[in-house]
Amino acid sequence: MIRTISRFSAAFIVAAFILVAGCSVDSVSQQGDTGDPLPSWKDGASRQAIVDFVDAVIDESGTDYVTPTERVAVFDNDGTLWSESPVYFQLFFAIDRVKALAPQHPEWETTQPFKAVLDDDMEALAESGEKGLVQLVMATHAGNTTTEFEEIVKKWIATARHSRFDRPYTDLVFQPMLELLSYLRANDFKVFIVSGGGIEFMRPWVDDVYGIPPENVIGSSIKTEFEMHGDTPVLVRLPELDFIDDKEGKPVGIHKFIGRRPIAAFGNSDGDLQMLQWTSAGAGRRLMVLVHHTDAAREWAYDRKSHVGRLDKALDEADEMGWTVVDMKKDWKSIYPFELE
Amino acid sequence: MIRTISRFSAAFIVAAFILVAGCSVDSVSQQGDTGDPLPSWKDGASRQAIVDFVDAVIDESGTDYVTPTERVAVFDNDGTLWSESPVYFQLFFAIDRVKALAPQHPEWETTQPFKAVLDDDMEALAESGEKGLVQLVMATHAGNTTTEFEEIVKKWIATARHSRFDRPYTDLVFQPMLELLSYLRANDFKVFIVSGGGIEFMRPWVDDVYGIPPENVIGSSIKTEFEMHGDTPVLVRLPELDFIDDKEGKPVGIHKFIGRRPIAAFGNSDGDLQMLQWTSAGAGRRLMVLVHHTDAAREWAYDRKSHVGRLDKALDEADEMGWTVVDMKKDWKSIYPFELE
Repeated sequence: MIRTISRFSAAFIVAAFILVAGCSVDSVSQQGDTGDPLPSWKDGASRQAIVDFVDAVIDESGTDYVTPTERVAVFDNDGTLWSESPVYFQLFFAIDRVKALAPQHPEWETTQPFKAVLDDDMEALAESGEKGLVQLVMATHAGNTTTEFEEIVKKWIATARHSRFDRPYTDLVFQPMLELLSYLRANDFKVFIVSGGGIEFMRPWVDDVYGIPPENVIGSSIKTEFEMHGDTPVLVRLPELDFIDDKEGKPVGIHKFIGRRPIAAFGNSDGDLQMLQWTSAGAGRRLMVLVHHTDAAREWAYDRKSHVGRLDKALDEADEMGWTVVDMKKDWKSIYPFELE
Repeated sequence: MIRTISRFSAAFIVAAFILVAGCSVDSVSQQGDTGDPLPSWKDGASRQAIVDFVDAVIDESGTDYVTPTERVAVFDNDGTLWSESPVYFQLFFAIDRVKALAPQHPEWETTQPFKAVLDDDMEALAESGEKGLVQLVMATHAGNTTTEFEEIVKKWIATARHSRFDRPYTDLVFQPMLELLSYLRANDFKVFIVSGGGIEFMRPWVDDVYGIPPENVIGSSIKTEFEMHGDTPVLVRLPELDFIDDKEGKPVGIHKFIGRRPIAAFGNSDGDLQMLQWTSAGAGRRLMVLVHHTDAAREWAYDRKSHVGRLDKALDEADEMGWTVVDMKKDWKSIYPFELE
């Protein structure tokens, strides 16, 4: 279901919601005869801010009208469109890759951070820090062609499972955000992912899961190099960082890839602060939204002290600037699509 | 006229062509009742290769059918969509910038390559080579914010004129290619520019001139950095190369920005060879096209020995691989839109 729901219209989602979850017709139809485009969003300030913004920028007779070509919305991925606990899911991919490649690398049995991975020693892995993380990425994400890497990611995302829910990682996308993506697209927004995660880790599956095509994905990257393998041109993935699409890098990535300033930005952590600042500084009506992880029962609860997805400075700035902060526990009727099954 | 024609439908172009250029209805309607989408293309192998390709990939019942999402076409800019003689037009922009900035740089009067520019000494400028060119770019393209640079480009492109034709540079776009862009878009292609030229030099005007939005432009770039100027976030353009989108860089740029392989590629020089190779190596029907500058009377004639837009290795490979080579003199009824005025 997750692989198809994001492709269907808001009407379909509403219909599915009624049929599957038994939601009353009254609450669904409160937005009018066409059905509620955001059935998993409870009434409240967050939902209202989103709807008011969209209504304002699509109203041709209003002062806040924005032409469709300029309706660019950017979304962080980890923690904003899907979960990111206990660590970014891409790290689980890297860990699984280390284990798969270990037979070809006997030296890893005694070398950090690889030994930590092979020993399932997350504490030692954490101790290896950013340097260890980069080593892990280079050993697991480089050294093959772009075509080979794409196949590796596709296979992993189709088979790997999150231990807490015993479900594929792509089941842990946020149902309210899927609805929001559809709602924005239905109102002629161009939706982009702007993630600190690897661009080539996301592109193989985000179209199926979110309905966001590869050309609308911005992320961190390693360098690639054009080579002829015999008569076949290939792009080889090099163990060298190209671009870090996080914090100050997010506005840089947006400008580099899109070349226009978004009018709406959605994030969940301090890594998204500059993206929201950059978005907010444009002329005209803007929408800045932070997803606050407040639901330990259904998902996870964390903010200012978290190692993953820390939300501290950005939470202060949201308060100061009047940005919208979504309280997952209070604002979302359901978190994951499988809750509707 | 140039600023609007690319936005209109093929039908409009046909209508304009009939009204303005007095083209006979017979020759226009030969492609059927809906009008000829490529009125500036003479009948011949080049035109036929393009039409056959499009017909094949949009035919849902055929073996060569390609879904709209995968219909990606990439176009070089200099020499493919507009002229590039006697040098890339961006160099004229850099030269004009040096002259505008010279009062703030008295040292340029005695320093190359700036002295050469101020003396209008193109020979000395050429002698400064690639190193001189990079110095020129850094001095004229960096040191301001992205917003400031965009305004500088917009002002220049609206006022500067090409000396041979005494017309704005944007008048020197190719009418047959404007028709081709419209034709592809009408058949649900996503059209991208993939140019060795500066991405931020192109983005301010290519939407108006070609109907290609900024997010569909790939080019060479310098680095930018996010900074807060007081309360205002800005992106500052640094005098440091980020990416060279030429030769082996073009497939890298395509993969980085689009994340899927094009099914059609259009270029005119050896700088486009790898882009065509990369495009041709995908599975399924493909179209690779080179524009050959053969018309000294209406445009320019050059190929294997040219310093700008050299077409040598790629011409051999086109011959060997059966790629389409457009002979501007023979294949194009008109070169520039102003010929239709």
